[in-house]
Amino acid sequence: MTNPKRLIRPLVRELHPYVYGEQPKIKGLIKLNTNENPYPPSPKVLAAVKAAVDGRLRLYPNPTAQPLREKLAKWHGCHADNIIVGNGSDELLALATRAFVEPVPEGRVIRVPNHKKSGTRGARPSETVQYFTPSYSLYPVLADIHGAAKNPVPLKPDFSLPGVVELKRDEIWKFDAALTYVTTPNAPSGRGYQTPELEKLCRAQKGVVILDEAYVDFAEENAMKLALKYPHVIVARTFSKAYSLCFQRVGYLVGHCCLVAALHKIRDSYNVNGLGQIGAVATLGDLKYYRANFKKITATREWLSRELTKLGFRVFPSQANFILVQPLRFTAHEWQHKLRAQQVLVRWFSFPEVKDCLRVTIGAPAEAAALVGAVRRTLHD
Amino acid sequence: MTNPKRLIRPLVRELHPYVYGEQPKIKGLIKLNTNENPYPPSPKVLAAVKAAVDGRLRLYPNPTAQPLREKLAKWHGCHADNIIVGNGSDELLALATRAFVEPVPEGRVIRVPNHKKSGTRGARPSETVQYFTPSYSLYPVLADIHGAAKNPVPLKPDFSLPGVVELKRDEIWKFDAALTYVTTPNAPSGRGYQTPELEKLCRAQKGVVILDEAYVDFAEENAMKLALKYPHVIVARTFSKAYSLCFQRVGYLVGHCCLVAALHKIRDSYNVNGLGQIGAVATLGDLKYYRANFKKITATREWLSRELTKLGFRVFPSQANFILVQPLRFTAHEWQHKLRAQQVLVRWFSFPEVKDCLRVTIGAPAEAAALVGAVRRTLHD
Repeated sequence: MTNPKRLIRPLVRELHPYVYGEQPKIKGLIKLNTNENPYPPSPKVLAAVKAAVDGRLRLYPNPTAQPLREKLAKWHGCHADNIIVGNGSDELLALATRAFVEPVPEGRVIRVPNHKKSGTRGARPSETVQYFTPSYSLYPVLADIHGAAKNPVPLKPDFSLPGVVELKRDEIWKFDAALTYVTTPNAPSGRGYQTPELEKLCRAQKGVVILDEAYVDFAEENAMKLALKYPHVIVARTFSKAYSLCFQRVGYLVGHCCLVAALHKIRDSYNVNGLGQIGAVATLGDLKYYRANFKKITATREWLSRELTKLGFRVFPSQANFILVQPLRFTAHEWQHKLRAQQVLVRWFSFPEVKDCLRVTIGAPAEAAALVGAVRRTLHD
Repeated sequence: MTNPKRLIRPLVRELHPYVYGEQPKIKGLIKLNTNENPYPPSPKVLAAVKAAVDGRLRLYPNPTAQPLREKLAKWHGCHADNIIVGNGSDELLALATRAFVEPVPEGRVIRVPNHKKSGTRGARPSETVQYFTPSYSLYPVLADIHGAAKNPVPLKPDFSLPGVVELKRDEIWKFDAALTYVTTPNAPSGRGYQTPELEKLCRAQKGVVILDEAYVDFAEENAMKLALKYPHVIVARTFSKAYSLCFQRVGYLVGHCCLVAALHKIRDSYNVNGLGQIGAVATLGDLKYYRANFKKITATREWLSRELTKLGFRVFPSQANFILVQPLRFTAHEWQHKLRAQQVLVRWFSFPEVKDCLRVTIGAPAEAAALVGAVRRTLHD
């Protein structure tokens, strides 16, 4: 009988299975661990999606999400050819890794005792995915799946971006890496970056730069203009977080038509489901509703940050729909368990830079108030 | 200024962009070119999806499609660990190519004047995607995107499977290819295959075999038991065609848990949209409705085959929801244009084995009758 293990590529065999964020179905639980929006999609979006649930489900959806791309192009002041829509932005980040980065040839892979690929040893710039740490935990996963090399480079201790001069001096950063991911605002710290500093970094890079703006609608500014100005800069956006459409998997990239065309060539033919396309188009027709939600969420964020600071926690400044919080009187793990006992779910990350902190999603005001109540009780345990 | 072309991997740069099946929005057009089901999803499915269009759209869907996998496992008599659900079965076929086949190292790629990868020259079995021709046109595309070698092997002139003895004698077929795709029933011919002949082929293969059963619900038998019997055999299914859910992108694979786990490792975390999951679960709760549709479609198929045969066309026997038809009095291209002038859209394929034929999707009885009327008029032009 065939041993099925030997049918799998060694590269894939050695990957660790992904561990999902907890999605428990417990009544009364306050779920502040996956950065979902506390507000539902707009009534107009729900009505548009509901109205589309009919015989058309038997038909293929628009293969290029053409109506959505046209609306997005109008919004961002570009052409539909500058846009690719994906099954969530995760799909697009994976496509970008496969389109712009060469896998390290099997013969040159340097194995280390713990079976993980080494960071940069022996890898060429054309084979390198680069990103700051901490940032979105998917980037190294995508590099590993593709068999590319990883170059993780620490942010400064306050999670601000090192300047180009510092990066040159430290000689770890690769200005010729094939693909560089920058999460802006950063996750899981929430730190926002200004367009001029992002522009300086982009100008110094020779490979593709993806500015991952998953949380940008909660920030003071965005860097979309860089994607329209520089042929090697791409901006990633999603309808999941700010536009309350996680369930329907719609994200997009904006960039030079030549890079976008390369991604279109390697994607699945019908990669975006039809009801997701309809929901996203309807979303763009009711931006006022969502802008009001951004205001509510940022107001709750500021209130929660103040309250937790008053209670003796260190709260990092955030421009996202979550805050990074460091308990000063006990460890992050202790605090996470204490909160869990109070029916509050938050997220811990293993990055060394944030291992003493927890990431707390900004919920509705009632959830934030309940969190503060729970925190007070954990302090009196 | 950066030339964006040089940022793209040479492999991707040389791919041809995919050409989509025509999706025109012309009133009165009879669209028989993309094998969609003429009947809508069941009223229970539409009700279940509609009922789910609410605040939950803000939440992430189940990352492993757990409820759907459990229902599918019960149906097929296996465990949820034997199943992976995808964003249409296309996503899963692409994942399988990436999990089971090594790309040909860039140094060994043999370029030929027309810039396409050569078929098998210099490629190792571990780098080879194999399939019969004609069959689903996606397989060579997936091999090209991955940088794998292709081994296309002709079916017999009547589209039946060559036996193992014949394949051995002809010395083109690779019994050690990393991945072999078999479309069963075949597309675009419609030819059905019996489980014993598929089993003989599977037993002779050393690599992974995917039995692509996209159209199997319209056939007399299916080969699911082979996926549960042999660790290297996987069956691919979709909710698109038989279950009228093209719009929502849900397909799945059944196979050994070890191969399935490898695919889970390299897929996107939330690869199946939530409303698609709900629609598919509801579909499994109303199979009676769909079985009645299969009967209607196969009855229409038999009627249409008889009528076209009477009118002097060669109709190949079909076990799918389409028929392959060869006009004997003019060329396939001429006939396609004549039908188009009569507002009927059908599909032509460039495979040499079927270039004299057109593929006609089985529509509702009224569409089939309208097609026959249009065909009669093309004969009297």
